[in-house]
Amino acid sequence: MTTTSPADLVTVCRTIDDLKQKLQQLRWANAALTVGFVPTMGYLHEGHASLLRRSKRENDITVLSIFVNPLQFGPGEDLDRYPRDEQRDLLIAAEVGADLVFMPSVQEMYPVKPQTTVLVSGVTERLCGASRPGHFDGVGTVVSKLFNIVQPRRAYFGMKDAQQVAVITTMVNDLNMPIEIVPCPTVREADGLALSSRNKYLSPEERSQALILSATLRQAREWMRKPDLTVQELTSRIHASIASAPMAVIDYAEVLYYPSLEQPDGEQLLSGLEQPLIVALAVKFGATRLIDNMIMNPAKGEISSHV
Amino acid sequence: MTTTSPADLVTVCRTIDDLKQKLQQLRWANAALTVGFVPTMGYLHEGHASLLRRSKRENDITVLSIFVNPLQFGPGEDLDRYPRDEQRDLLIAAEVGADLVFMPSVQEMYPVKPQTTVLVSGVTERLCGASRPGHFDGVGTVVSKLFNIVQPRRAYFGMKDAQQVAVITTMVNDLNMPIEIVPCPTVREADGLALSSRNKYLSPEERSQALILSATLRQAREWMRKPDLTVQELTSRIHASIASAPMAVIDYAEVLYYPSLEQPDGEQLLSGLEQPLIVALAVKFGATRLIDNMIMNPAKGEISSHV
Repeated sequence: MTTTSPADLVTVCRTIDDLKQKLQQLRWANAALTVGFVPTMGYLHEGHASLLRRSKRENDITVLSIFVNPLQFGPGEDLDRYPRDEQRDLLIAAEVGADLVFMPSVQEMYPVKPQTTVLVSGVTERLCGASRPGHFDGVGTVVSKLFNIVQPRRAYFGMKDAQQVAVITTMVNDLNMPIEIVPCPTVREADGLALSSRNKYLSPEERSQALILSATLRQAREWMRKPDLTVQELTSRIHASIASAPMAVIDYAEVLYYPSLEQPDGEQLLSGLEQPLIVALAVKFGATRLIDNMIMNPAKGEISSHV
Repeated sequence: MTTTSPADLVTVCRTIDDLKQKLQQLRWANAALTVGFVPTMGYLHEGHASLLRRSKRENDITVLSIFVNPLQFGPGEDLDRYPRDEQRDLLIAAEVGADLVFMPSVQEMYPVKPQTTVLVSGVTERLCGASRPGHFDGVGTVVSKLFNIVQPRRAYFGMKDAQQVAVITTMVNDLNMPIEIVPCPTVREADGLALSSRNKYLSPEERSQALILSATLRQAREWMRKPDLTVQELTSRIHASIASAPMAVIDYAEVLYYPSLEQPDGEQLLSGLEQPLIVALAVKFGATRLIDNMIMNPAKGEISSHV
């Protein structure tokens, strides 16, 4: 009797050289084959699977990376307790049909203390850029490294991290990286909770109260249709809505332009705004910090997330 | 009677799209053809030509870029008076046999105010990094952009800008850029003056006194062979030697480890140093700032520059 390990079902590369060699083998007959890339920190859920499926549809070869990047965690953040489950991740990768899974060690990615940082300003000033100093420097740097290693035609990111999408799109445009960034809709549980690897930390009571995030976004969508509401009034209503969950501790709850992430004048009427707005939330339930968002052009309707 | 313009002798691309298209045409039959890249700020001299010739020898296709990058000039520096001569540059490019010349406008390279910076720490702390704040941020950023546009296998840089070579090598290694950086020896006039586009600004008297740079480096090479000399003593002798030219105003004259550009203990005997050292000079003659350097392992002899 033989048992099949998940690692037998999908090709796993743990070194940069191995990944490059395997990619070259896959493309040996035809260098024009396109590579789609889904960079993740693992502990995969249906959100990640949706990115992989889209990459499969749009590219000849799909590469998944799983790397919990120390550079994007601040002191006191949850690097050490970030959830990991390699075997389960490989099963999902195999099921979805990823062609290569790149799982480097920290030593492989950072053999010496890196002196180079890819720094994005502007779009990183507010939201997670403000509440997690250095976070996006770590994101920009590791995504640059992964892009240079994998050299994909397209890379797929979930809109749950809308600021991350804005940061990476800015970086790719500014640095002329030959890669198309494909933002994909947030995937939710049936009751509205946005999927996140961190959801597993929620107690049943926290899990139940965390529904206030998507409920508030759905409410905000209705409020944004009222032409005589100002940005400030909308923001206050959002804060009040989240505060109705007694365990919720707001990190931020802001209404900004998207993708510039600049702050509109609070006195401005929503009906007068021509650019899309993002309602961006980061809220702690116990030790677990969750984020969610919705993007909408008040004049034209919802854009790239659905709640 | 027809006249031939230099632009008829070599293929010039002024937009990113045009360059990419022309590169694709050159590689259409064989994607494995290698691209060598020589990024410059133009006003080409024999130093640049030597890089181009080496790229021609080692690659199937050679791309020259000419772009005076505003991002790497500080306020009050010589951006506006940096020498330009497009016609002469194209003649040299044609003569050496560059396959493509990329000459973008500032608008083409920076269509919007860039928010992304590629920042290298450590090796940028001293020398030109200290005396030209922000200079290497501009270099790292523009070289990243050019690398992403041209996607070369190899890129060629002159060792006259030894710190630039250290910065770019660090960046390429840290970010896993799939490019080999090839440092090439400084090219000199018969009397020792290192070639530089800025030499044209020297008055005959300044030109004559500027020979103190290479003369001091030659002297330093001899001094470094004395086993009982300390780093501090060597540095003092170098300062005194440069000061013997009355018009010389020293910006810096330092002895550092190469390529880390860290400072050795001044009390250390040269004979006890295992790592290579760089003697790096930046000296002003009138309004013109010149740099030069020599790299040597006191125990083993000269390494990558010759004076």
